[in-house]
Amino acid sequence: MAGNTFGTVFRLSTFGESHGDALGGMVDGCPAGLIIDLEFIQRELNRRKPGQSKITTQRQEQDNVKFLSGIFEGRSTGHPIGFIVENNNHKPTDYEHIKDSFRPSHADFTYQEKYGVRDYRGGGRSSARETVCRIVGGAIAKLYLQTFDISINAYVSQVANIKTNKTYKELDLSKIETSMVRCPDDEISSQMIELIETIKKEGDTVGGIVSCVIKGTPIGLGEPVFDKLQSELAKAMLSINAAKGFEYGDGFNSIYKKGSELNDIFIATTDMEKRIMTQSNHSGGIQGGISNGEDIYFNVAFKPVATIMKEQKSVDRFGNTIVIKGKGRHDPCVLPRAVPIVESMAALVMADFLLKSKTSKI
Amino acid sequence: MAGNTFGTVFRLSTFGESHGDALGGMVDGCPAGLIIDLEFIQRELNRRKPGQSKITTQRQEQDNVKFLSGIFEGRSTGHPIGFIVENNNHKPTDYEHIKDSFRPSHADFTYQEKYGVRDYRGGGRSSARETVCRIVGGAIAKLYLQTFDISINAYVSQVANIKTNKTYKELDLSKIETSMVRCPDDEISSQMIELIETIKKEGDTVGGIVSCVIKGTPIGLGEPVFDKLQSELAKAMLSINAAKGFEYGDGFNSIYKKGSELNDIFIATTDMEKRIMTQSNHSGGIQGGISNGEDIYFNVAFKPVATIMKEQKSVDRFGNTIVIKGKGRHDPCVLPRAVPIVESMAALVMADFLLKSKTSKI
Amino acid sequence: MAGNTFGTVFRLSTFGESHGDALGGMVDGCPAGLIIDLEFIQRELNRRKPGQSKITTQRQEQDNVKFLSGIFEGRSTGHPIGFIVENNNHKPTDYEHIKDSFRPSHADFTYQEKYGVRDYRGGGRSSARETVCRIVGGAIAKLYLQTFDISINAYVSQVANIKTNKTYKELDLSKIETSMVRCPDDEISSQMIELIETIKKEGDTVGGIVSCVIKGTPIGLGEPVFDKLQSELAKAMLSINAAKGFEYGDGFNSIYKKGSELNDIFIATTDMEKRIMTQSNHSGGIQGGISNGEDIYFNVAFKPVATIMKEQKSVDRFGNTIVIKGKGRHDPCVLPRAVPIVESMAALVMADFLLKSKTSKI
Amino acid sequence: MAGNTFGTVFRLSTFGESHGDALGGMVDGCPAGLIIDLEFIQRELNRRKPGQSKITTQRQEQDNVKFLSGIFEGRSTGHPIGFIVENNNHKPTDYEHIKDSFRPSHADFTYQEKYGVRDYRGGGRSSARETVCRIVGGAIAKLYLQTFDISINAYVSQVANIKTNKTYKELDLSKIETSMVRCPDDEISSQMIELIETIKKEGDTVGGIVSCVIKGTPIGLGEPVFDKLQSELAKAMLSINAAKGFEYGDGFNSIYKKGSELNDIFIATTDMEKRIMTQSNHSGGIQGGISNGEDIYFNVAFKPVATIMKEQKSVDRFGNTIVIKGKGRHDPCVLPRAVPIVESMAALVMADFLLKSKTSKI
Repeated sequence: MAGNTFGTVFRLSTFGESHGDALGGMVDGCPAGLIIDLEFIQRELNRRKPGQSKITTQRQEQDNVKFLSGIFEGRSTGHPIGFIVENNNHKPTDYEHIKDSFRPSHADFTYQEKYGVRDYRGGGRSSARETVCRIVGGAIAKLYLQTFDISINAYVSQVANIKTNKTYKELDLSKIETSMVRCPDDEISSQMIELIETIKKEGDTVGGIVSCVIKGTPIGLGEPVFDKLQSELAKAMLSINAAKGFEYGDGFNSIYKKGSELNDIFIATTDMEKRIMTQSNHSGGIQGGISNGEDIYFNVAFKPVATIMKEQKSVDRFGNTIVIKGKGRHDPCVLPRAVPIVESMAALVMADFLLKSKTSKI
Repeated sequence: MAGNTFGTVFRLSTFGESHGDALGGMVDGCPAGLIIDLEFIQRELNRRKPGQSKITTQRQEQDNVKFLSGIFEGRSTGHPIGFIVENNNHKPTDYEHIKDSFRPSHADFTYQEKYGVRDYRGGGRSSARETVCRIVGGAIAKLYLQTFDISINAYVSQVANIKTNKTYKELDLSKIETSMVRCPDDEISSQMIELIETIKKEGDTVGGIVSCVIKGTPIGLGEPVFDKLQSELAKAMLSINAAKGFEYGDGFNSIYKKGSELNDIFIATTDMEKRIMTQSNHSGGIQGGISNGEDIYFNVAFKPVATIMKEQKSVDRFGNTIVIKGKGRHDPCVLPRAVPIVESMAALVMADFLLKSKTSKI
Repeated sequence: MAGNTFGTVFRLSTFGESHGDALGGMVDGCPAGLIIDLEFIQRELNRRKPGQSKITTQRQEQDNVKFLSGIFEGRSTGHPIGFIVENNNHKPTDYEHIKDSFRPSHADFTYQEKYGVRDYRGGGRSSARETVCRIVGGAIAKLYLQTFDISINAYVSQVANIKTNKTYKELDLSKIETSMVRCPDDEISSQMIELIETIKKEGDTVGGIVSCVIKGTPIGLGEPVFDKLQSELAKAMLSINAAKGFEYGDGFNSIYKKGSELNDIFIATTDMEKRIMTQSNHSGGIQGGISNGEDIYFNVAFKPVATIMKEQKSVDRFGNTIVIKGKGRHDPCVLPRAVPIVESMAALVMADFLLKSKTSKI
Repeated sequence: MAGNTFGTVFRLSTFGESHGDALGGMVDGCPAGLIIDLEFIQRELNRRKPGQSKITTQRQEQDNVKFLSGIFEGRSTGHPIGFIVENNNHKPTDYEHIKDSFRPSHADFTYQEKYGVRDYRGGGRSSARETVCRIVGGAIAKLYLQTFDISINAYVSQVANIKTNKTYKELDLSKIETSMVRCPDDEISSQMIELIETIKKEGDTVGGIVSCVIKGTPIGLGEPVFDKLQSELAKAMLSINAAKGFEYGDGFNSIYKKGSELNDIFIATTDMEKRIMTQSNHSGGIQGGISNGEDIYFNVAFKPVATIMKEQKSVDRFGNTIVIKGKGRHDPCVLPRAVPIVESMAALVMADFLLKSKTSKI
């Protein structure tokens, strides 16, 4: 109820603050017998970790995960997979100066008011460092999804006003990881990097859009009414730090089409099997809250992160006016590092619905 | 787990299909002692009911709610408030012809595949008629929120490409209900109505945007990490039929600003109390997943509804190509009727977080 | 969270008071495709209803269930099965006199203190009449369990100091329903009936033990650690009005044996299959919280019900001393009617674990 | 859903196996601002740890807890309190010989069947070592309860056929910790110790009863219908390894009294306040599932533990007959070490209901 657990059957619970000894958590409900590929999990963590490139924060964190339970002889046992990720590079003194300050558009003020007590070091629990645990959980979920040949790929489709005009179908998704900004459109990728470097020099930040596509989903995932597939995806995405919006299928652009233009006509294959599919996919692979077997795709908008290297006015907890300036090493644009987080949250949603779907029919 | 319950402390559970004897449900966790204003609840239902105006479906449903429990001498008792809404005007024969058909962009196909059995009459459980129960639950939530002076107002801000350029602050929200399309911008309202009438004549449908603003929220609602205030709002909104996208605060437009432009500077009142607030409100009243006391505002995109009065190709469950045409009485644009549904879902989210917040501190 | 829902996957939610218009609820998570045998459900309700025999209350309630949703052409659709049971025979005036009184060992006092408002008519929500909804949910669970050949039989094994010395294996369980007191030991049954009649004349009440056996459980139901099979059974049983204790397998008598005497030795069948079972079954079919394929058996102790036809001292809500005497028509011994309730709760537990077990392995 | 989380608002989630690197978990929902007395928590752990006395196992485990999050400057922050307890003294080779064996009345067989894969070392997740995490969670719950002056004391009231005839009111509960067997009745304590020593020499084990009393509970804790206070206590207790039965108040002995003898008469104090209480307390402090302010007391039956130092027949996973004999260092009687576990589970239940009760009324 306090918001540190995600999922119903396949559940990730997390704990930890930016500047404590360690973050960690547990994956409960992972089915027994799954091969746990530790190298894959570490590679996923590396995609999120700081210091990857010149356009991300230069903080050096190793982000090595240590598993404590739930794995035996390389396989999941059906019991909770406990893990920790130690905080090696924390410098609490970086934050002493903000002990009583409320940084603009951060959680300092709301946390102070809600709890009356606050671990101010690096934002404490509100730090995006918390997402390291989501990567661990998401990576295990991905391993499970892979046994069903379900793949999830996210990429940066827009940074500020620089935007690829290609759809996911027109892009070569295998190029995502070769782009420093994780945009598989070469030309746009270069422009994005250039912009981010400029912004970084200004001490400012920029936002953008992460697009994501899920392929290979079987028909029937998602629950009607309140727990629709898109509802849980929306919740998952909006739970990521700095996310401001979510749309799936044609999303906000749906409103510029008429029903007759937007409806996805069903067709059947001409072979004996007569497998049913849709001609177009404005629905984004979800109808009535349930996957229809087509590609699921969606966008997540991220605002520019709040920590900037410029002076800003604010107040302290006593209501005195102060001037604040970001210290430490921060991201001018979180989008590249948000890509594996979006994928991880999507993987958690899909793994949960896959397991739920096993109980739909007698 | 099967998706028919919403909320954790203040919980709405619903049942019922479009063409069964009745829909119904229960509100569990409503605190004891709340005055249950039955007339208010019925007025809320009337805002959603069909046949309100020339631009909604001409189906006549009374949508009278009958409460069965949990209320004694005009007050909630702390026990579940059970209720039913009878289906008086159901004409199952309207749907016999689609028994084996899969209507484009409806849930017919996904339900059939997921469950193997399907109540095809009027879409069964996938019918938007289900939202009548959300109105009941939402109205009770609103009564609870009113005791804290929290108000929720939604309105139609866009239909197809007709859009008000005024923000919620520039609009007179008391005019919402006097507009047939529930847009409080007179001129735009007229244009919207005209467009919907044209579309209706074509037998087609249009979508748009419902905007919503929540005023009076105390500081501290929302839970960090996975159950952020915006996460639950997003989930709630995307669970509404035909919803395709959600954004809060500056939303998707955040990406066109720099961090230095988007950050909301904290200021304090100059009186003794030194109450802290923000100068701007790009954050949409939520920081770190928790309300900061400013107005919460968000947009929900709705696609044009799938049922059109035009011929469409499709397939039946055996994979045979068929031609389908909507019968019965349907909405050319669901936006006006979606307004109270958006409010209801928002009210459920806020009531739940209010109750949760009582356990944050010792 | 407010305690009106039972189960995780297979969930029963209930509402309703003793003297409202109706009780009701919904079963959510019942897998699609289950044949819903309405006559079976009604027969189960009849086993619980008052006025069955000379040793139960003479209240006449029809207890007819009306299903409102989730069933189509005789089968469950996977959507919530909503239902109501109307209160036809309620006489609120029977209770006017206890409006401000706290009946000894009833919930009047605790409800008043907890909620500040109380539906005093017939105990309101605390009335055992609420269990009518458990029978409906339990009957649907039984229908599901029957598809796996799992059977559940409860019977009265003790009333006050009259007790059958036979184990469930020595009894003919098919005789349960032919005994007015639901004790399949003929001689003991007669003695129990005689005792209850005597007690009834005294205006007093007696308690006893309901024993229950579950046969045909597959190996592997139950979850380790907190949600052990016996934990959920214990919770389920202690949630029944007037239940005071629970034990399974050898239960409290386990303490009189040594480990070497109590351990259940594993043996294997001598055929090719080498199916593993236990020689004895002191464990009651559960090891490590998980079913081992042997019979599950347990006892539930019920105290004599609190409503007696004798004068008792008490206080009213203002602290004044009063004298109270039961009016209306009450059970001198609830045990016979508790039998189907014990079975229903056991069925809900087992159906839930069966569905959960589908997600244990990849 | 996989059973590794306990509680709704105040939640303990645990992970870890007997012979992994560490066990651990997190307490989520602990209200912010609670002073976390680390020494108290360690003292609680010491009460459970092995090697305390000649009548417990001689295994030496330090059971030092390391907190990783959720505590700042000595207080809870409202965020999850993550912790680990390392396994220092594990000797996996002790268990190699049982890799394919099914120990009688252990979870080996059911785990193997349920999951298909099994960490056989020391019972893996089924080991009672898991309860170390319950002590951590329970100790934090106790710290919270202490702020309300709620106390919980458990003690051993019976071992095999040696039993104190004194009620908790007649015993000096401050003597519990001075008795090696945690029985505050001096004479009985000595007899119990003698018996356990004899049994230990035999290589056998014995069971018994732990009694528990909760004092200072405010009126109004517990939820009606399914989540009654006694239901959750029963679930909590039956989730402890080797527990076979639960009874509260007069429990199983209730059946030997008539209603007129068992009912608890309400009385009021004679001062101005007219505080209402009961004359007797057969109800065990709970009426209608809700605390009435009187002492809550209950018993838990524990069977003799399954691991004995004698030869026993069994089968291996291929169905071959084998002979098994306990190795390593085990408890001849778990009762003394079960005492803090019973208290911890009770504390978790009470803390959860306390927080829930904050949402009962407007």
